[in-house]
Amino acid sequence: MTTGTMTSRADFPGMLTPEGQPWHYLDTAATAQKPQAVIDTVARKLGADYATVHRGVYGRSAEMTLGFEAARRTVADFVNADENEIVFTRGATEAINLVAQSWGSSQLEVGDRILLSELEHHSNIVPWQLLRDRKGIEIDVCPITDDGLIDLDAAEAMLTPRHKLVAFAHVSNVLGSVLDVERAVSLAHGVGAKILLDGCQAAPRIALDMKAMDCDFYVFSAHKVYGPTGIGALWAKADILDAMPPWQGGGAMIDRVTFERTTYAPAPARFEAGTPAIVEAVGFASAIDYVTGIGIERIEAHERALTRTAREELGRFNSLRLFGPEEAAGIVSFEIDGVHPHDLGTILDEESVAIRAGHHCAQPLMDRLGVPATARASFGIYNDETDIAALVRGIERTLRIFG
Amino acid sequence: MTTGTMTSRADFPGMLTPEGQPWHYLDTAATAQKPQAVIDTVARKLGADYATVHRGVYGRSAEMTLGFEAARRTVADFVNADENEIVFTRGATEAINLVAQSWGSSQLEVGDRILLSELEHHSNIVPWQLLRDRKGIEIDVCPITDDGLIDLDAAEAMLTPRHKLVAFAHVSNVLGSVLDVERAVSLAHGVGAKILLDGCQAAPRIALDMKAMDCDFYVFSAHKVYGPTGIGALWAKADILDAMPPWQGGGAMIDRVTFERTTYAPAPARFEAGTPAIVEAVGFASAIDYVTGIGIERIEAHERALTRTAREELGRFNSLRLFGPEEAAGIVSFEIDGVHPHDLGTILDEESVAIRAGHHCAQPLMDRLGVPATARASFGIYNDETDIAALVRGIERTLRIFG
Repeated sequence: MTTGTMTSRADFPGMLTPEGQPWHYLDTAATAQKPQAVIDTVARKLGADYATVHRGVYGRSAEMTLGFEAARRTVADFVNADENEIVFTRGATEAINLVAQSWGSSQLEVGDRILLSELEHHSNIVPWQLLRDRKGIEIDVCPITDDGLIDLDAAEAMLTPRHKLVAFAHVSNVLGSVLDVERAVSLAHGVGAKILLDGCQAAPRIALDMKAMDCDFYVFSAHKVYGPTGIGALWAKADILDAMPPWQGGGAMIDRVTFERTTYAPAPARFEAGTPAIVEAVGFASAIDYVTGIGIERIEAHERALTRTAREELGRFNSLRLFGPEEAAGIVSFEIDGVHPHDLGTILDEESVAIRAGHHCAQPLMDRLGVPATARASFGIYNDETDIAALVRGIERTLRIFG
Repeated sequence: MTTGTMTSRADFPGMLTPEGQPWHYLDTAATAQKPQAVIDTVARKLGADYATVHRGVYGRSAEMTLGFEAARRTVADFVNADENEIVFTRGATEAINLVAQSWGSSQLEVGDRILLSELEHHSNIVPWQLLRDRKGIEIDVCPITDDGLIDLDAAEAMLTPRHKLVAFAHVSNVLGSVLDVERAVSLAHGVGAKILLDGCQAAPRIALDMKAMDCDFYVFSAHKVYGPTGIGALWAKADILDAMPPWQGGGAMIDRVTFERTTYAPAPARFEAGTPAIVEAVGFASAIDYVTGIGIERIEAHERALTRTAREELGRFNSLRLFGPEEAAGIVSFEIDGVHPHDLGTILDEESVAIRAGHHCAQPLMDRLGVPATARASFGIYNDETDIAALVRGIERTLRIFG
């Protein structure tokens, strides 16, 4: 099947080589290129529109404040949530740390357990290990199936009333495997546990609906949704967020400060100490506007089709081993017999094809797959079959070199 | 005396009104306008140059990594420090929270004491209160003198061997008063305490030399040094930073992750979990290049002269009360009898003069001054005497309205 293109590549200045030729960028799972509309928004907000938020008594600051809070509504609408449930963070990693240190530190006790999975990104492992070391809780690890899905049958058998949290990737950043959210939420809630989903790879490619999904925490990063670096979002159910103690102290998150006693603002402000990433928030909203202008369902279908095509094409190489499920969301990992992924990446770079090679911040998953690293191709709204063709040509050349 | 201008206002798109007239922006202590060079850098890094750092095997990612680490060297050079001593944070507020939660949580014990001052910004109060509530330490508050300086005689009398940290503003964000750093450092070290300086208002206007100053921690924000939002820096002495445990967990801050045991990268990477604010870091360096191109000593002299002129001009109004010392760094706070600062700010806005009115995130200082709020004018490299003249005209009009 032909997949076509979702959008004009010309919208993305990052999709050209310095020589003005097409760049076959297949590393969107690491970070997405930005449409010109986002870049223009950021430049304007840093320039003629620039002012601080929340505090100015002059008009431009009031306008920036409106823009900043409108950005929060845009992010909330993107995941069908209420704006008071959206906390701006530096990215998904900080959002998970916020949950671990505020919710985790205040709610968990010695002997409580957390269930993670074998395929988690380090950002959904290490914050819980730091919490474990501080609080004396235990971490259990749900295995994955041979085709790279979190094994929910195993999860069901492992979960106990001592489990207070399940934290799973919605989409694996290595395998593209998609969690069965409905069942995972049901299993967690069935034992009285909360559930956090790492949505870094899902937010750019799957329609999200916090009200329908009924999870408790959801995190994602702007830079993977075609937005700026330096910002991301934590969504949490309002009653959970309201009950969470402050994590970082500073301006904007307080109600009244005296040296004896300080009272705090309600959520989400309580969790946004200091001058926020103002320009980045407005740029984040601009990126979401761009994505929703295309339609996330169309993007999902486009990337699933590209992924199927890529798996078909890559599957023709005898010496190539594909990881992950047949049906995956925008991400394909593989290895080639006798070729280190880094060498492959370097040769592909000479062909203007950019993939990622490494452990993808998922060393436990590498251990499970029995490899030190994989090569990974991942797709975005600007990719089409010409990028897959360039990847295939590059692999053919690599095999000739190593042959 | 005439002060002239340091730089072309035309470099700053934010210094015009929507009608293209000069905007008398006197709120640089809240946040600084950005030179076009910074905006262009950010736009280019989000566009044709965009890629992730640290992980890519392709050329553009390697170049972005070089740019990101060069930015760290630029920040380090700006304060005469080693690059391994610079941790990128979201801003000064996060930097203080990092010190409180990593260094403070691991080093302080029940009964230990911290000395703050009456003029601190909430961001240098609340993180220590959160630490106090967790660790059972005590906070002491050094008074200020009647002209708004931290009273170091009082500090000397208060400090004991139980004090493990002194945390003072280098320059007050309300009064512009400048700390005697040499004496403050000497007093802290004299009792064996570490000293943290909040450099938010000093970094844009005073030459900084970490080796000469010999403090232990120093924090500042990019957006107040003419750089992007969403990034700032913690400087700490290498041996202190090396001994600090991780705070946030995630990608990039690890050495090796298994579910049983994770080992961490050395500082500064250990404190930079997740995809960093890549574009913002490079923009931060671009802003520092702009500032150092002018020369920080020239900026300091320029802003001190503007501040003297402003105090002279404002001092002519009988109903106006000036706060803070005669010799101040770029910031003047005042109140006008019978005119609420917010009303003044609103009327000035109609004259294209932007000041700040409020508690300036320093409520304990407001309590000390006996006011709920002040009006504050603060200067940057783009200001000159025409801005002061516009402020004076606006106050005259306000007095006629309220007269």
